[in-house]
Amino acid sequence: MHSFPFAPGHGGRLSENAPRGAARAPLGDAAARYDAVRQRSLAICEPLAVEDYGVQPIVEASPPKWHLAHTTWFFETFLLKVYVPGYRPFHTDFEILFNSYYDGIGEQFPRPERGRLSRPTVSEVLDYRDYVDAAMRDLLAQDEADIVDRITLGLHHEEQHQELMVTDIKANLGLNPLKPSYAAAPRGNGGDDCAASSDALAFTEYAGGIAQIGAQDGDGFVFDNECPRHRVWVDDFALGNRLVTNGEFAGFIADGGYDEPTLWLSDGWRWQRERAIAMPMYWRSVDDCWFEYRLDGERPLLPSVPVAHVSHYEADAYARWAGARLPTEAEWEFAASPWAIEGNFADDPRAPHPRPVGGDAMGQLFGDCWEWTSSAYGPYPGFEPLRGALGEYNGKFMSGQMVLRGGSCATPVGHVRATYRNFFYPPDRWQFTGIRLARTINRS
Amino acid sequence: MHSFPFAPGHGGRLSENAPRGAARAPLGDAAARYDAVRQRSLAICEPLAVEDYGVQPIVEASPPKWHLAHTTWFFETFLLKVYVPGYRPFHTDFEILFNSYYDGIGEQFPRPERGRLSRPTVSEVLDYRDYVDAAMRDLLAQDEADIVDRITLGLHHEEQHQELMVTDIKANLGLNPLKPSYAAAPRGNGGDDCAASSDALAFTEYAGGIAQIGAQDGDGFVFDNECPRHRVWVDDFALGNRLVTNGEFAGFIADGGYDEPTLWLSDGWRWQRERAIAMPMYWRSVDDCWFEYRLDGERPLLPSVPVAHVSHYEADAYARWAGARLPTEAEWEFAASPWAIEGNFADDPRAPHPRPVGGDAMGQLFGDCWEWTSSAYGPYPGFEPLRGALGEYNGKFMSGQMVLRGGSCATPVGHVRATYRNFFYPPDRWQFTGIRLARTINRS
Amino acid sequence: MHSFPFAPGHGGRLSENAPRGAARAPLGDAAARYDAVRQRSLAICEPLAVEDYGVQPIVEASPPKWHLAHTTWFFETFLLKVYVPGYRPFHTDFEILFNSYYDGIGEQFPRPERGRLSRPTVSEVLDYRDYVDAAMRDLLAQDEADIVDRITLGLHHEEQHQELMVTDIKANLGLNPLKPSYAAAPRGNGGDDCAASSDALAFTEYAGGIAQIGAQDGDGFVFDNECPRHRVWVDDFALGNRLVTNGEFAGFIADGGYDEPTLWLSDGWRWQRERAIAMPMYWRSVDDCWFEYRLDGERPLLPSVPVAHVSHYEADAYARWAGARLPTEAEWEFAASPWAIEGNFADDPRAPHPRPVGGDAMGQLFGDCWEWTSSAYGPYPGFEPLRGALGEYNGKFMSGQMVLRGGSCATPVGHVRATYRNFFYPPDRWQFTGIRLARTINRS
Amino acid sequence: MHSFPFAPGHGGRLSENAPRGAARAPLGDAAARYDAVRQRSLAICEPLAVEDYGVQPIVEASPPKWHLAHTTWFFETFLLKVYVPGYRPFHTDFEILFNSYYDGIGEQFPRPERGRLSRPTVSEVLDYRDYVDAAMRDLLAQDEADIVDRITLGLHHEEQHQELMVTDIKANLGLNPLKPSYAAAPRGNGGDDCAASSDALAFTEYAGGIAQIGAQDGDGFVFDNECPRHRVWVDDFALGNRLVTNGEFAGFIADGGYDEPTLWLSDGWRWQRERAIAMPMYWRSVDDCWFEYRLDGERPLLPSVPVAHVSHYEADAYARWAGARLPTEAEWEFAASPWAIEGNFADDPRAPHPRPVGGDAMGQLFGDCWEWTSSAYGPYPGFEPLRGALGEYNGKFMSGQMVLRGGSCATPVGHVRATYRNFFYPPDRWQFTGIRLARTINRS
Repeated sequence: MHSFPFAPGHGGRLSENAPRGAARAPLGDAAARYDAVRQRSLAICEPLAVEDYGVQPIVEASPPKWHLAHTTWFFETFLLKVYVPGYRPFHTDFEILFNSYYDGIGEQFPRPERGRLSRPTVSEVLDYRDYVDAAMRDLLAQDEADIVDRITLGLHHEEQHQELMVTDIKANLGLNPLKPSYAAAPRGNGGDDCAASSDALAFTEYAGGIAQIGAQDGDGFVFDNECPRHRVWVDDFALGNRLVTNGEFAGFIADGGYDEPTLWLSDGWRWQRERAIAMPMYWRSVDDCWFEYRLDGERPLLPSVPVAHVSHYEADAYARWAGARLPTEAEWEFAASPWAIEGNFADDPRAPHPRPVGGDAMGQLFGDCWEWTSSAYGPYPGFEPLRGALGEYNGKFMSGQMVLRGGSCATPVGHVRATYRNFFYPPDRWQFTGIRLARTINRS
Repeated sequence: MHSFPFAPGHGGRLSENAPRGAARAPLGDAAARYDAVRQRSLAICEPLAVEDYGVQPIVEASPPKWHLAHTTWFFETFLLKVYVPGYRPFHTDFEILFNSYYDGIGEQFPRPERGRLSRPTVSEVLDYRDYVDAAMRDLLAQDEADIVDRITLGLHHEEQHQELMVTDIKANLGLNPLKPSYAAAPRGNGGDDCAASSDALAFTEYAGGIAQIGAQDGDGFVFDNECPRHRVWVDDFALGNRLVTNGEFAGFIADGGYDEPTLWLSDGWRWQRERAIAMPMYWRSVDDCWFEYRLDGERPLLPSVPVAHVSHYEADAYARWAGARLPTEAEWEFAASPWAIEGNFADDPRAPHPRPVGGDAMGQLFGDCWEWTSSAYGPYPGFEPLRGALGEYNGKFMSGQMVLRGGSCATPVGHVRATYRNFFYPPDRWQFTGIRLARTINRS
Repeated sequence: MHSFPFAPGHGGRLSENAPRGAARAPLGDAAARYDAVRQRSLAICEPLAVEDYGVQPIVEASPPKWHLAHTTWFFETFLLKVYVPGYRPFHTDFEILFNSYYDGIGEQFPRPERGRLSRPTVSEVLDYRDYVDAAMRDLLAQDEADIVDRITLGLHHEEQHQELMVTDIKANLGLNPLKPSYAAAPRGNGGDDCAASSDALAFTEYAGGIAQIGAQDGDGFVFDNECPRHRVWVDDFALGNRLVTNGEFAGFIADGGYDEPTLWLSDGWRWQRERAIAMPMYWRSVDDCWFEYRLDGERPLLPSVPVAHVSHYEADAYARWAGARLPTEAEWEFAASPWAIEGNFADDPRAPHPRPVGGDAMGQLFGDCWEWTSSAYGPYPGFEPLRGALGEYNGKFMSGQMVLRGGSCATPVGHVRATYRNFFYPPDRWQFTGIRLARTINRS
Repeated sequence: MHSFPFAPGHGGRLSENAPRGAARAPLGDAAARYDAVRQRSLAICEPLAVEDYGVQPIVEASPPKWHLAHTTWFFETFLLKVYVPGYRPFHTDFEILFNSYYDGIGEQFPRPERGRLSRPTVSEVLDYRDYVDAAMRDLLAQDEADIVDRITLGLHHEEQHQELMVTDIKANLGLNPLKPSYAAAPRGNGGDDCAASSDALAFTEYAGGIAQIGAQDGDGFVFDNECPRHRVWVDDFALGNRLVTNGEFAGFIADGGYDEPTLWLSDGWRWQRERAIAMPMYWRSVDDCWFEYRLDGERPLLPSVPVAHVSHYEADAYARWAGARLPTEAEWEFAASPWAIEGNFADDPRAPHPRPVGGDAMGQLFGDCWEWTSSAYGPYPGFEPLRGALGEYNGKFMSGQMVLRGGSCATPVGHVRATYRNFFYPPDRWQFTGIRLARTINRS
């Protein structure tokens, strides 16, 4: 068992000097960072047909075109209109069309109808991006703290939307009966066959105590919801050394997991019964063999690859079936904080997909799949949202959603941290969401 | 008062020799007719951006791309697969994707989700059209009756979809907050101002008796739902000489028409209350002046232009407010059958829109707006649907819908007849649907 | 074939002197008639437990308590408040609570929530009835035409609600898993066994021509929707001599009728698919034998009894399967008008239920089951609704509903006429609704 | 500021010897305890009319009759069928009808339709109770631990339903436009007038540290969800000394609280906008003065009485408006555990209602209103549900709901504890749910 690194009351910080990715880059190169992030959004769309930019296959997703415009709207609204005297907005209607949810800014075009807007065209949206990027030049050269902070926030915001663009593109193409491929095959997934199994899951034990979680001053960029750093009591626990695999999840299905009500939360049981859900999103059974739609097309399911696209309900039911449970976010952060932020992130032009992991060491904490925790998303003690309309960024969603940790294969490199808190509703599963098991250790 | 042209029992037919439009063209030029109709579908889409081909702004409408593919699927399914030995379908999945409602053919992609398919792309759909058009060449040269009949049906089918393409494009663009223009202004609508009024409505009286309505052998192409020709008793009636205008309908609104329950059918009252509907589709009130979205953009409402885009409920309520009623389909056909099929049809590349009419003569029976009748859509006595899956073309919709007559400014020239029966649900209003008043004449 | 009794143009009236039932009783005994009708409502409720008065098992139905109060509200609102100076309403809130749909009177308590009102109690509703009945004494003695007409209307209105009370009670008890009996067994249904069959259906042919349908002055009480009497053209047709039986409908099911889309109207197909409907309401299959809930409890299905509780969609699909169609309302009235109004009506305290009929003669035109016609419910030519709020009685429902004719085993004796037009939405089936077949006769 | 009573690491238990109410009564008098609890359910219904037993005004509530039967079903299912050889159930259909949510037991009658069952009648349900109570006699004399534990659970279960009966009766009567009174006025609410205000809210500060919350062996009866007792870290905090009052909440409304999006959680904003909610349930504004429906009828709102019937969303928005927040469940239990379980509980036949409190001392922790916490309802570390179908009692609801603490004026005396965890969905507000404020103390 690993020993508990910091004694209660020491107030020690975990992983103080851990690398934090590009967010921590010196601010002198703000323009380069800005250009790189903005360019990355376009690169994600590069394999798309014009038609692919506009559709909204499920109400939770948005068209790629909308993401391209909304991230631009963010810079226009929170920087150009505020800090550039005499700035003329590109198009007055865009304020409503591309406002996502900022009631403090004003009215919004209804989210479920984003997919019915053929205009502005892709070309007009790209013009909008160029127009705003040009106007941003001057601001990128300034070193006023407020401006720098907002630019940084805008870039992290765009990185979040880059992940959504990938998952929304996957929903767009994957729910199309033609099941088109977005891009070439990901590396490292070959050679597996439909019958293969993976190594047994190992657990690492952790001694509990008073831990500290959350981010603090000097950590570089963090979102408001990661703060403040604060003490929590953590009981002894054990954490699975890797994500649950497709093969393991297929075992749950084969064992009748979706038909056994005692494995399910009441809300989850109703959810899967009413929607006739009996497998992860993107799975399909053909002649008793599983297939999975990936960004490179529909393929035979690889058993040793982490299962992805499961809801919180499915993750929770699987854990109960496996005699385990989901970790709390405190347990997860406690275990993850000493590690370098390395893993299967979206650093590659090829179609992102989770990858198998070998060996018994604790692995896959970062990248591959967001890991559902058992923790409802709420404010940390002493949480203070940002001031003004930007205060709506995170705080108002602290109800009804669950925390996910660790990033995924669709997350830009350098975007996540051990303290990073992602959040989705329990039924959501169009993100790369997976399962890490935990166990309570009884010392009686 | 016009006299009743045929005495009861004479069995006389009205307008036996009336011109019937292009459908009656000699069959020798089948290929030319085929090319012309197919080409016209593409011409309608010519002003569109690629993005405009894919969206489905309301569930009743379909994306233009879907119309282009579905009309092609019709020829592939009912002609190529049946009559061309060894024909290889363009894409097996298209059978499901572009089957509209033919249960006899098989499964269909869900209609409300047509707008979420980014693939096939427009380019692929155009390839599909080329592929099928090429394969049709041989069949177009044959004179076997079944083949000729099905080709003729397929072309009339495509013309119906051409009208839907126009109205669906209008919904796509008109419900977009940017309100883009589809094409240049229609002719003949200039010069009107917001306060202008139109001439008083005149009524023409008709003496009733035993009439005959419906189509019969030798009439050229007709749909199965127009047959058989049969006797009906028509009481004396009077018919408005023109369509109700925007200005008149604005008077109904100004008089509180939408707020007076006694003017409305019970279903209609609930419909407008639940949806907060208080004006025709595409109208907007800005600073106490009405504006209307047309295919050439949003414009000040022209009072003398016929009101369009009203539901059956609104047409019925307006008629009651005006001390009149809607005509039955028998009355309409009785009055219309002697007339040449001339009017404001979609014969022009410019954006179709209803046009004002002058004078006291009976006018606008054909073109401008489909005219809601008070007749529920049902089978004529002795109605026989086509055999096989094509029997689903018209017959299975004879429930819950209302008959409309006369065609609209979006109807291809030569497509309609005096016997032509269009049908929509009472709340539908994205077609160019207007109002002609009728009155019962009491001879006590 | 029967000959056509009136030549075209004669203007002859059918069945001018036919007996019309109690509605035609001399008005001198208004009080006795009033008492009898009012008492009959209470007699229907006599077998009920207090709990049975309040529930609303389906939104289309209303609690018996509500019917008892609403029929009382009708007299209070349209007579006592109008004609009795200084009349003090029993309870001011009752105006809203027991107003069914008269927008001209004012606000209404939401219909779907009638079943959630435990107050007023049954006892309070009976007090309300007593209070209003006492106040009506004076008016019953008057012979002013308006008052007499409104009282007559109020009594016919209450008879309509008596039929609804029976069918709503049946839904209440029949949808309860305990399937309690309302009253003792109906006569004449014994001795049948599960395998029995009935005689083949015979058709009577009618020569068409100009008929007259509808009611006219001097006919005694009729509803506004039956007027005016008017000419219609009727083609030659044939009518089934009896209603379709349970055994015949079971044959439709056994033949896969519910699974064959070409038998169904498009709306009907969607209706039964979405609700997984595969048999008439109240049927249940146990060990391959059919059972039917009747007002005397669940019993083995009797094959020779008319099928009841089918929707218009089911009636229409059955007719198509049987190579026939539903009659128009004109055909039905034309055939029915010469007959005396005799049949299986609700003249008996025992649980009403359809009864088998023997012989080849035209039978069951009145009573047993309301007969779905193929006619959409609309205004007769020259229809004039009653003035004021009472004008909402019938006219505003002339949209989306289908006409039914002939009355049922739950209809009070003397309530229906050959001209009587009942109407329900196509999916409705909690009334005693059945099927009579018709055929077109081709004389080519 | 209060000092923190137990140092970190001591493992000390809070309030080890606190009285726990009737649940801790010696088991020798099991029969007397059984009779008392069972009788209390009947006493709650004593003021009802027969009609009041059956209605279900909102889907979350159940008819009183259903509660009377379901609590009986609990004893029949989990005791009589298990431990009494040859026990014959009262009615086989009742297993489905009165099974609330135990999938392990079998099928259930749909919850939203409980209000449409007129049968069994109240009288039959009382027979059911008598039958089961008689059969329970023998088991009540036994001292086998499993039997004793299940009887104890059954009685606590019935007490929970007693509270639901009161709140469901309130919804039944309070949503009825007649607003009938359930029982005579509660004590201690007189004399207030519409303009009165209450004393300013005081806060008590608590020093944080490692606390222990939850129940442990030897505590007497507790539910599984209160276990195990475990350590939590609590930061310094302050807690309001009383519940928020009607007057204070009226101030929030007057200040536009319902119209200011930045005060609301995103889910809560959508909730109140879509439902047009602008005041607590049971409030009504008449001529600019507030009225509140209470179990003794509609009354002018008393400003010094605690506000009740607010959702979690409203509680959270109010707290934000007041510059405070809701307490966590750990903070609440930490503050409450030293106190005796005394307060305004349902110990009185008169209509329960919250009461004002005076003075600056910490008050109203128990009774009056359930207090919304900011804690999502989840499993304690090491939580183990009961075995078998009883494991569904609490555990499967640990998703999407929020914890409430302290009991209400409708909670039976002796039922709650400092460790007691109630839970409802954020929008629920038909319980007596109120607001206690908390604040974070920053010691920088």
